[in-house]
Amino acid sequence: MQKPGSDKPSNNTFNNNKIPSYQRYLPLLADLKGINGQHFGQDLLAGTITAILLVPQALAYALLAGLPPEVGLYASVIPPIIYAFTGTSRTLAVGPVAVAAVMVAAALAPYAGDDPAKYLTGALILSALSGLIMLVMGLLRLGWLTNFISHPVLTGFTTGAAIFIIGTQLAALTGITVPRGSSFAVVIDTLIIDITNLNAATAIFGITTIVLLAMARTPLVNFLSGLGIKKETATVLGRTAPLLVVVSAIIIATGIGAKDALNIAVVGTVPQGLPGLSIGFLQEPGWFELLPSAVMIAVIGYVESISVAKVLAFRRRERIDPDQEFRALGLTNIVASCAGAMPVAGGFSRSMVNFDAGARTQMAAIFTAILVGLAAFFFTGLLANLPKSVLSAIIIVAVWQLIDFQSLKHTWRYDRGDGIAQAATLFGVLAFGIEHALMLGVSLALILFLYRTSRPHIAVIGRVPNTQHYRNIHRHEVQTWPSLLLVRIDENIYFANIPQVETELHNLLLAYDGLKDVVLVFSGVAYVDTSGLELLENIEEELSTSGVQLHLAEVKGPVMDRLENTTLCKRLGAERVYLSIEHAVNELTDSAINSSAENSGSRKMP
Amino acid sequence: MQKPGSDKPSNNTFNNNKIPSYQRYLPLLADLKGINGQHFGQDLLAGTITAILLVPQALAYALLAGLPPEVGLYASVIPPIIYAFTGTSRTLAVGPVAVAAVMVAAALAPYAGDDPAKYLTGALILSALSGLIMLVMGLLRLGWLTNFISHPVLTGFTTGAAIFIIGTQLAALTGITVPRGSSFAVVIDTLIIDITNLNAATAIFGITTIVLLAMARTPLVNFLSGLGIKKETATVLGRTAPLLVVVSAIIIATGIGAKDALNIAVVGTVPQGLPGLSIGFLQEPGWFELLPSAVMIAVIGYVESISVAKVLAFRRRERIDPDQEFRALGLTNIVASCAGAMPVAGGFSRSMVNFDAGARTQMAAIFTAILVGLAAFFFTGLLANLPKSVLSAIIIVAVWQLIDFQSLKHTWRYDRGDGIAQAATLFGVLAFGIEHALMLGVSLALILFLYRTSRPHIAVIGRVPNTQHYRNIHRHEVQTWPSLLLVRIDENIYFANIPQVETELHNLLLAYDGLKDVVLVFSGVAYVDTSGLELLENIEEELSTSGVQLHLAEVKGPVMDRLENTTLCKRLGAERVYLSIEHAVNELTDSAINSSAENSGSRKMP
Repeated sequence: MQKPGSDKPSNNTFNNNKIPSYQRYLPLLADLKGINGQHFGQDLLAGTITAILLVPQALAYALLAGLPPEVGLYASVIPPIIYAFTGTSRTLAVGPVAVAAVMVAAALAPYAGDDPAKYLTGALILSALSGLIMLVMGLLRLGWLTNFISHPVLTGFTTGAAIFIIGTQLAALTGITVPRGSSFAVVIDTLIIDITNLNAATAIFGITTIVLLAMARTPLVNFLSGLGIKKETATVLGRTAPLLVVVSAIIIATGIGAKDALNIAVVGTVPQGLPGLSIGFLQEPGWFELLPSAVMIAVIGYVESISVAKVLAFRRRERIDPDQEFRALGLTNIVASCAGAMPVAGGFSRSMVNFDAGARTQMAAIFTAILVGLAAFFFTGLLANLPKSVLSAIIIVAVWQLIDFQSLKHTWRYDRGDGIAQAATLFGVLAFGIEHALMLGVSLALILFLYRTSRPHIAVIGRVPNTQHYRNIHRHEVQTWPSLLLVRIDENIYFANIPQVETELHNLLLAYDGLKDVVLVFSGVAYVDTSGLELLENIEEELSTSGVQLHLAEVKGPVMDRLENTTLCKRLGAERVYLSIEHAVNELTDSAINSSAENSGSRKMP
Repeated sequence: MQKPGSDKPSNNTFNNNKIPSYQRYLPLLADLKGINGQHFGQDLLAGTITAILLVPQALAYALLAGLPPEVGLYASVIPPIIYAFTGTSRTLAVGPVAVAAVMVAAALAPYAGDDPAKYLTGALILSALSGLIMLVMGLLRLGWLTNFISHPVLTGFTTGAAIFIIGTQLAALTGITVPRGSSFAVVIDTLIIDITNLNAATAIFGITTIVLLAMARTPLVNFLSGLGIKKETATVLGRTAPLLVVVSAIIIATGIGAKDALNIAVVGTVPQGLPGLSIGFLQEPGWFELLPSAVMIAVIGYVESISVAKVLAFRRRERIDPDQEFRALGLTNIVASCAGAMPVAGGFSRSMVNFDAGARTQMAAIFTAILVGLAAFFFTGLLANLPKSVLSAIIIVAVWQLIDFQSLKHTWRYDRGDGIAQAATLFGVLAFGIEHALMLGVSLALILFLYRTSRPHIAVIGRVPNTQHYRNIHRHEVQTWPSLLLVRIDENIYFANIPQVETELHNLLLAYDGLKDVVLVFSGVAYVDTSGLELLENIEEELSTSGVQLHLAEVKGPVMDRLENTTLCKRLGAERVYLSIEHAVNELTDSAINSSAENSGSRKMP
């Protein structure tokens, strides 16, 4: 693929013809070759720990998406197995995730209204569509499009989504009814107005769960460590807390007759087992209507998955193939839609748990899926009396970790533009809803970026005495020459900054009198687009009519390759393009420094 | 305004507190101070030549916009006088222009249908709205937003618009009727189907005009020069051609009874004089509907004006204030709307004529306006019998110059991305219409730009033997060290390329074994956004856990200023940030070259 001598980076690690294609598209098979008993045991342990965490979360995230709880279980069995075979991450735990769930709810409220059947169909369409979008993006290698979502915008978005989720779950936690698809303002408003209507028993279940889960983290681990239990074991015990809480809640709720005696909303009948694969939803209407939401679910799902996959992979010096990830997640979601499941992605905290628990390969995920599958077959009957407020509490504790105000503070301090985009996205989620906020944040980040590059840094430079270094005349004590102007352009020269570069250069040229030579230093220029080339040609022509010669120095290889056959380079000729500033200065002035080792030859480009 | 020692470029030449404000906002008054008799004479001559060119163009462009011809005259009297006082260009000739005219037609066809009164009101609303937008852009200093329109997109757009205009005018030229607001395909289709229905007399007038005008350019000038007439005089005589042709056409058409006997479409009654200022259109509906079109007319009008203004200004070492230009053109268009005129802008060819004819100040434009005003008062009666096909011929000859296929070829060769955006804009005009094509081109240019920066050039570099220069190991024979990796990143590190930079760095780090030190060379990095900072922090942390030290070299001042208080720089400390690669290599290896003048001190930043 690469030309000899080409230094074009290969962006795709797995795009190497030496790797057999089954291995490229089914990485698990390659991993399994080298597996041994110890690895197998590690994967089994990690898979079990993850399954214990996943079961309550799966139920909870389905409710968060406005779907029956079993849809979360379905999303945790077949889809992760598909990912296990196709994904390039060895430790990513794929399944229902909070942010995608709330995006599903946002998309389906206007689509399905209060019709539960249509709501479910809509969820399947969203799985299928977002999977299809991911697959196409992967096949067309369009992964770079997701770069548009900058880290600050993503953090702002997830923080906003987490706050939004907590707001809506506070209602379920306390038994206050809020209409589906309500905005954050309405949710908060309802919470405040109806606070007296809360169902005390419901709230007690919910709040107790929150307290227990919060204590099960650091406090419990520290306590158990204090008792002499190993920290690792203590951490594992802490992770069983959600399941223990759920089991206890079911026992208590059944005992006190939560549903009938206390009017507590409970999960109700959950069908046993898994549904057969079905494509009935393909005939339903609404695909076009749900497309924009599906795009956003696909993009956010992918970005979340790939971020955590990369972090985990590099820790063990493994590699992730971004394009194959797109294809794998795409296939996973398409299968999810046929398996009656909501959209899935790689979850951050769950993958961390899986990784920390010692998962070596995706076999761990397969063990998790099998265990969740067993739960679906044998234990769904027990869920009927589980109060929904317990699941709300689990959601609240899970998404609490997504709130990152530290990041807001840091971003604001480091880069005002990023800070504005981040804050706008966060408040946008609360003010305009999930989907609009994401668009707002992405557009704002883009506009602010273009604003920034539209004011490039242009420095007049001079020689640091007795060295071959050239620095900004305003920041350093440097040597300059009356008939020679050295101008360093610290930015690509392209359409977004042409007028500013032009004005700036014009102003400099008007400010210096008696010039004979102007050297543009391109050490900071990696790209000159057509508009930039035109600008340079104009400047050269204007200068030459005033008897001033234009020169270029430190032009990078890729830039020179492009410039080589242009009118500009024909006019400049080889002798006005210098390898280094030093060469240019030596040629154009009499001030070569003698101690330099390179005065011997006049080495020029191209 | 500037901090002492700050090297932030001042982007606005006129934003200098020493200039009195009347001079900043009314630049003409300053120019008039220094005027003398000779200048006055030059301006009078240039103004007269421009007026002779303008009168037929003004009538023609009004028809092109679908408006009565007098609207073009109105646009050539009061508005240019407003610009003359407020604009910073001394030679820009403001008035009706072809591209804005066709954009007006595109906007008004769906708005007004076949109601001429509503059509006229719509044109006034467009003038007012686009003026208002320009004024606001100028006051808020949002001129940089127009950078989004790259040169290739602009050239593609004007070429496409010119072809579109020629298509529609071919119908008027031959007397074939095409419904208002027809797409290019419909126009061409109608021309071909109805070719037999053409009005032969109309076509003869039109085609003769085209032939005469084409001959009046280079052939006539050469012929007159051959007769011993000075080239300048010959050129001036050539410029009177459109007016002479119009006068001749009127005489002939009147003589042969064009309208009644030959059924030729003629201009008809043109009201005498200028209308009083009126703001009646303010109450009309449709402002919101016309807003998007007004934005595009404002942007294209501004971009065209400022481009030609800059070219002309630099030739005489004068300066243009882009923000004041926005305000000036905004005010000019707002006044235009009250003066019953269509939107105006600085025309390219007309300004060139004005400049070449020796205009020194905007007094020339005022003379032009007075002469066109006199024509409106005394000669409109003569226009009744002017065949419209003569005006169509004038339009065709005028916009012919806007077609630039050379540019297409050059762009395609130099930069494929720009080439695609340009071609898409051109064909977009013909396929989807003026407005959609502009949006398409701008979005495409942006996406292609982001695609390009999303694959940054990252080079492993080594020392050119016996020098202090460091170059790409794939392009040059260089010296390297086994435990030291020098990596040069040739692009700003920001959200659009984070995943690629990350993957690339990870791959490099995985590819080199036995590393102790990695130096990232930032000579090509002018900006590190929050996502980039996060990436660097992650890389540093990952490296340090593997016992590898990260260093930075050649960090530019503005980048260092930002990084200074970050966790990254606290972890790196002053000793791991080097002024130059040479310093880093000397410090981290034993291979300093002795002849260097700078080994004495270890100069480090910050």
